[in-house]
Amino acid sequence: MTIELINTGSELMLGRVLNTHQQWICRTLADRGRVVDRQVAISDAPEILVGAVRDALGRSDWVITTGGLGPTCDDRTRELVAGLLGRTLVHHPEVEAAIRAWFESRHRPVPQRTRVESLVPEGAEVLTNRHGTAPGLAIWLDPNPFRPGGTASWLVMLPGPPRELRPMFLEEVLPRMSARFPIRDGFACRTLKTTGLGESYMEERLEAPLRDLVEGGMDLGFCARTGEVDVRFVARGDTAVEVVTEAERRTRATVGEHIFGVEDDTLEQVLVREFTLRGLTLGLAESCTGGHIANRVTDIPGASAVLKAGVVSYSNASKASILGVDEQLLAVHGAVSEPVARAMAEGVRRVTGADYGLSITGIAGPDGEVPGKPVGTVFMAVAGPGGTEVVRHQNVFDRQTFKYVTAQQAMALLLRLAKISGTVQAEGRS
Amino acid sequence: MTIELINTGSELMLGRVLNTHQQWICRTLADRGRVVDRQVAISDAPEILVGAVRDALGRSDWVITTGGLGPTCDDRTRELVAGLLGRTLVHHPEVEAAIRAWFESRHRPVPQRTRVESLVPEGAEVLTNRHGTAPGLAIWLDPNPFRPGGTASWLVMLPGPPRELRPMFLEEVLPRMSARFPIRDGFACRTLKTTGLGESYMEERLEAPLRDLVEGGMDLGFCARTGEVDVRFVARGDTAVEVVTEAERRTRATVGEHIFGVEDDTLEQVLVREFTLRGLTLGLAESCTGGHIANRVTDIPGASAVLKAGVVSYSNASKASILGVDEQLLAVHGAVSEPVARAMAEGVRRVTGADYGLSITGIAGPDGEVPGKPVGTVFMAVAGPGGTEVVRHQNVFDRQTFKYVTAQQAMALLLRLAKISGTVQAEGRS
Repeated sequence: MTIELINTGSELMLGRVLNTHQQWICRTLADRGRVVDRQVAISDAPEILVGAVRDALGRSDWVITTGGLGPTCDDRTRELVAGLLGRTLVHHPEVEAAIRAWFESRHRPVPQRTRVESLVPEGAEVLTNRHGTAPGLAIWLDPNPFRPGGTASWLVMLPGPPRELRPMFLEEVLPRMSARFPIRDGFACRTLKTTGLGESYMEERLEAPLRDLVEGGMDLGFCARTGEVDVRFVARGDTAVEVVTEAERRTRATVGEHIFGVEDDTLEQVLVREFTLRGLTLGLAESCTGGHIANRVTDIPGASAVLKAGVVSYSNASKASILGVDEQLLAVHGAVSEPVARAMAEGVRRVTGADYGLSITGIAGPDGEVPGKPVGTVFMAVAGPGGTEVVRHQNVFDRQTFKYVTAQQAMALLLRLAKISGTVQAEGRS
Repeated sequence: MTIELINTGSELMLGRVLNTHQQWICRTLADRGRVVDRQVAISDAPEILVGAVRDALGRSDWVITTGGLGPTCDDRTRELVAGLLGRTLVHHPEVEAAIRAWFESRHRPVPQRTRVESLVPEGAEVLTNRHGTAPGLAIWLDPNPFRPGGTASWLVMLPGPPRELRPMFLEEVLPRMSARFPIRDGFACRTLKTTGLGESYMEERLEAPLRDLVEGGMDLGFCARTGEVDVRFVARGDTAVEVVTEAERRTRATVGEHIFGVEDDTLEQVLVREFTLRGLTLGLAESCTGGHIANRVTDIPGASAVLKAGVVSYSNASKASILGVDEQLLAVHGAVSEPVARAMAEGVRRVTGADYGLSITGIAGPDGEVPGKPVGTVFMAVAGPGGTEVVRHQNVFDRQTFKYVTAQQAMALLLRLAKISGTVQAEGRS
């Protein structure tokens, strides 16, 4: 099965927006056993758009377009595709009623020009848009006049805004895809999220334990992200689920202490979820990470049940005045030191009354080096019911990567000391 | 002039990485008066890669490929392109010496397989890689066998990692581009960064003042980002610079209070830069934004001269214990209220000893609504040498967008009250 994705919009070609559709659609399909063969981005100039759709229909079983379904003059996909296929645009009263209801529920007048959104090419299926006004459109071309022998193709047109496209793709497109293009052989896919072990070390550790599964046809993939490595298993055939399950079991047995989640889990999601389940609370004392951890934790709904408070103690004075770090400690050992990290974690635990205090102090760079402590030196501490533990790292990166990687290490340390390990999660999920 | 960009890599088609090359290259070229006509992403399967390069050479003046120049078995671009063009790969001793020097300067042995990176197709120009080992390659195809009439095309092959590609593109490719494809007419481009006024209102306000320039051929573009709108002028011809300068002057005269910077400026960059210039310091008291502002401010090198400390006062208790907010205020008015925002800003100013205290308290949602204060209610306050000002907003968004938009409003408020306006910047720059 061949799949082609066409993203339209002049703002793409001018580099004013980042094309997130490609990654999202490609990944959503790959996780379901389908790989996109080609992605094309073009402006909405008519001859280019029509040519790209025709070329794609000439070689692919499934062609997906994004963008150009809105009401303005540069939204041309609907009309140009109808023209290419020689189909007339028919007014669709149900779509118009849905658009009218959408505006009325928001107490806003219905703009005249949205009427164009209720025009549907003859024979096209309407894909409901729960988050906007322009519906998606799907056309089963059989015979397909652009393909040798007339082999059928499926043309699916989706609106451009991600918050409209994504739910539509999941709810309206994927069920139809499974019916149109069933995977007859079994398929299974699993991603384990890990941190604390580099990609090549991970590969080395897993090579022997997974060798027979890989030789038996399982795909083993690694994807290095900032401060994380994804380990991914893909298997096909009747035993696909068993193969992937066995690969996950062996991987957890081998590097379980580095696994913090599955699929799209993030460390902050796992932290909020597992702390909430256990009724635990947290206080943060961040120096060099500058609120990065607090920001990520508070991105997660429900964080307020876990995070009591965070302190970004960027100046020495604030370490003393807010966290109660002894000024003598700061004077003798310096702000970036084992004793100060310990005092910050214990201080924020005391000040906030949280079960756990997590502190980070270090030198993000580019300046700030002191003798014996080069740029990249970080101390992090966790103070909890069982005492305080301090760890030193050396993280040499640009400033933002430094903050990200340091935050990964700190959250992983906290989860480990709070006895929330990959193994516990695996049991909890099975 | 037609330009086509080909991004290669199986990880793109599996959706494991986001293709940032497209936006970056398209924007870098658009800012210099060239628009990319088509971008294609494909896997590194040989027949697909060769077909895509051949198709592109058949229709474009300039074809750029990214990826596939490294030393591993899935890096195939060099070899496949040489095959397509019928050119042999020639060992290039200077490239090999550069690769050797790269490893030796890092005290690492030279891996055997990097030798493939010193193979260069006959007649290709080598583009120096200052941040990695694989050089880029440029081939001027004249005649071009794939194009009607043999019209010449320029094929430029770049390595995949962004930190290698970007400096190579700026330093090695752009000067050659200007020589190959000079813009004979003048060209000028300017982007103004604004916040606090929606895209359609901005368009409405600027329509009359800029009408004659637009009618005279200047492109006026708006790009709505989260909590920001870019206003962009592009002009061509002998008077391009004058036209763009005049458009900027009129725009500053019309909506100057909403302009915080130019080109790629961010609010946090402007904040750190202008506070540093004036020797001003800042304390942050964030509730619903959860450290988002502290995180963005500390992304900027030099932030430690400006930010004394931040407090993420997520719990009521921490608002009282750390910021000294009167518990009576919290009990009577609630945490999300004008008096509490005021007390937080004044409290963090007092506790940190900063010149300015900035506070935010609100309901990010999805839960937390109270009577009279629906989800999205935000109070923000700035306490400074001239007193304290409190502003209320209603921001109804998903959680992360809520934090971003609220932070934009808060930083813009702070800049305004610290008398750092768009107009001041314009004068400072001219």
